[in-house]
Amino acid sequence: MSSELSSLLVRDIGEQGLLERLQRFCPQDIVGDDAAVLPFPNSGQSLVVTTDVLVDGVHFSDRTTSPEDVGWRAAAANLSDLAAMGASPLGITVGLNVTGDTSVSWVEGVYQGLSDCLQQYNTQIVGGDVVRSPIVSLAITAFGQVSPSRIIRRNAANVGDAIIVTGVHGASRAGLELLLNPDFGKHLQNDERSHLIQAHQRPKPRLDVLPTLGKILDSPLPITLAGMDSSDGLADAVLQICRASGVGAELERTQILFPLVLHQFVTPDQAMNWALYGGEDFELVLCLPPEPAKTLVEQLGEGSAVIGTITTGKEVWLRDRADTFADERLTLNRGFQHF
Amino acid sequence: MSSELSSLLVRDIGEQGLLERLQRFCPQDIVGDDAAVLPFPNSGQSLVVTTDVLVDGVHFSDRTTSPEDVGWRAAAANLSDLAAMGASPLGITVGLNVTGDTSVSWVEGVYQGLSDCLQQYNTQIVGGDVVRSPIVSLAITAFGQVSPSRIIRRNAANVGDAIIVTGVHGASRAGLELLLNPDFGKHLQNDERSHLIQAHQRPKPRLDVLPTLGKILDSPLPITLAGMDSSDGLADAVLQICRASGVGAELERTQILFPLVLHQFVTPDQAMNWALYGGEDFELVLCLPPEPAKTLVEQLGEGSAVIGTITTGKEVWLRDRADTFADERLTLNRGFQHF
Repeated sequence: MSSELSSLLVRDIGEQGLLERLQRFCPQDIVGDDAAVLPFPNSGQSLVVTTDVLVDGVHFSDRTTSPEDVGWRAAAANLSDLAAMGASPLGITVGLNVTGDTSVSWVEGVYQGLSDCLQQYNTQIVGGDVVRSPIVSLAITAFGQVSPSRIIRRNAANVGDAIIVTGVHGASRAGLELLLNPDFGKHLQNDERSHLIQAHQRPKPRLDVLPTLGKILDSPLPITLAGMDSSDGLADAVLQICRASGVGAELERTQILFPLVLHQFVTPDQAMNWALYGGEDFELVLCLPPEPAKTLVEQLGEGSAVIGTITTGKEVWLRDRADTFADERLTLNRGFQHF
Repeated sequence: MSSELSSLLVRDIGEQGLLERLQRFCPQDIVGDDAAVLPFPNSGQSLVVTTDVLVDGVHFSDRTTSPEDVGWRAAAANLSDLAAMGASPLGITVGLNVTGDTSVSWVEGVYQGLSDCLQQYNTQIVGGDVVRSPIVSLAITAFGQVSPSRIIRRNAANVGDAIIVTGVHGASRAGLELLLNPDFGKHLQNDERSHLIQAHQRPKPRLDVLPTLGKILDSPLPITLAGMDSSDGLADAVLQICRASGVGAELERTQILFPLVLHQFVTPDQAMNWALYGGEDFELVLCLPPEPAKTLVEQLGEGSAVIGTITTGKEVWLRDRADTFADERLTLNRGFQHF
């Protein structure tokens, strides 16, 4: 080993740089989506697996989040990764690092939150490990099942596809703002405030979309499908799908919906920023031909919308049919940036 | 929440106490074995999942273990949990916590060790997550597949079953001793030393036993089967099986084999201690009726042996047919104790 190599530290290349170097240890065909997809032998079905690690002080904090919400949000994020692949959940495992000073009721609160969220989707914690450690950290692995013809991949968008969202964006980011700045939006009605805060503390993975989507895919002619979830923001989702599929997109600003109540306490520009870049709304962003896309939007109802079209080229543009805002080109650098 | 409850800390009840309290969040029928077993829908097959968390300074150390060996041992422990359930591996995920000061080559060494071990068993790393954290920690989830009729459970041992081991015990513990005390056993030949050290650094999960076992189970009459791996020691494995099955056992001291070379540098009593309590040999301990047990031992060959019999009652006794040693009653307290 050269001394140069051995002296390179994680801080020199960052988590993203390290992840890229580690990908050579994984099979190339199953890296780069929300979750790994493997054939489950002798079943004609696929197994879908996703892992998230959450560290106290980095991904959650005792000071701003109840243990029940830490658990709920962790479960929701993992179930959303399964939904993003088209998979139904089978269970999760939890690898827990706790310190000697961690309160038992805090740990039980996290598990209660995990269980509460999982129960909504008829699934459960099936195992795990608990170890003593200098820090508190949670490693969650969720696994699910999908029929190979129903897998949703990032890299399958085609020019001419409609881009749809399964719900409004920006609610989670607005809820976070209300938690961070209690004076902000204080003239909102209680149910409006709590709706936004709930969107942040108890996000809902869109597993409910899968049966509706499944019926539309059961057409005589095969329907191509691409997509992912919007956990890192709507802009990021569209950009990731376009990058993986080698295509571009045009989004129509007037079609990107945020909760109406946002008009009462932020500018339209701020609301659009939260919708595009806020993240953690856990909606699905799907690309499919215009006709089935329209049917899906109609069946999903309120909040679901066609927001744009897949184009040739590699650029993603946000256009304004109303001509109030200048056209804006979206880029991954901005998409990764959390406010 | 009462203030008494909220003030209880993890250090007050320990990891084992915490694990017991957390079991109420898991379905009762899938807790308490080496891994969780779930039906995989529409397949007639079962999915087996196991999770281990390893913390730097607790479960491994830079100072005594190369990163490649950390990776190999972590993969081997998880694959052994699958083998203990009768399951063939489909893949693992890795949730990695690293500090900014962690060397990139160390991380790559761990992944190399994981991959090297997995490759021996035709499986691989299929995904994971990397996060920055104040400590280094690895959460590994392994998943595998088993036909429901081939599942090996701890709680299925019957009175009259033969207890067999798939190989010798004590080699891993002896290898650790040679690493900790280089002067110890210095008159051993190089290949003898390296064989023992290899047993500690590169243990082999006994997935190779499953096809042989499968053929024996394919008999016209159904054969009952119980078992687990000996990762926490041979004594612990027998005691856990007996506790879960509500039975006792008699082990025959002369049948418990340790590597012959141990005679050259420790007393027979010390060698037997290592075999019974040393741990990390990753052999399988199986209980099945005497006839198929005998066939299995013959087919597995060297190192495999019938070591005792399942009895009524709940006690586990170590007898000495040669009458050199007094009968000894084994208990879980001692079994959990690592030297």
